[in-house]
Amino acid sequence: MAKFMDIHRGMKDITAEQLKEAHNADLAIESQENVHFERAWADPGSGDVFCLSEAPSAEAVQRIHERAGHAADEIHPVPLTV
Amino acid sequence: MAKFMDIHRGMKDITAEQLKEAHNADLAIESQENVHFERAWADPGSGDVFCLSEAPSAEAVQRIHERAGHAADEIHPVPLTV
Repeated sequence: MAKFMDIHRGMKDITAEQLKEAHNADLAIESQENVHFERAWADPGSGDVFCLSEAPSAEAVQRIHERAGHAADEIHPVPLTV
Repeated sequence: MAKFMDIHRGMKDITAEQLKEAHNADLAIESQENVHFERAWADPGSGDVFCLSEAPSAEAVQRIHERAGHAADEIHPVPLTV
């Protein structure tokens, strides 16, 4: 298991409710790929959403995001945390 | 006070020790701008570092990062968190 930070772009004007719905859609199926989405932060101004997860691979993260209807634009392994 | 996610690029091959030193350099002076850097995550492969803070403004975040020797390339206000 490893940590990943992924970025979704183009979610300009996202609301708190939409962020929660998107996150819940991930949580509902994440266990099927052994992924856990821990947190997400949204900038409604730029439309960038940052999503922190623990997962076996970037591909597993993307499969869950795709099935939940919101593929990530970038997925970064982040093995270093402080 | 608000939450910010900033991104530093070009830190390819950053080590755990270097991430800790950079974070500590921020922590040492953050109170002078009422900023608090909560967490940072690094991807040594791409060289991208993600930094979560609570601060009065993006400008205050940048002033601390600049004085600590590592200006951010992007600073996103992230008023929505889940």
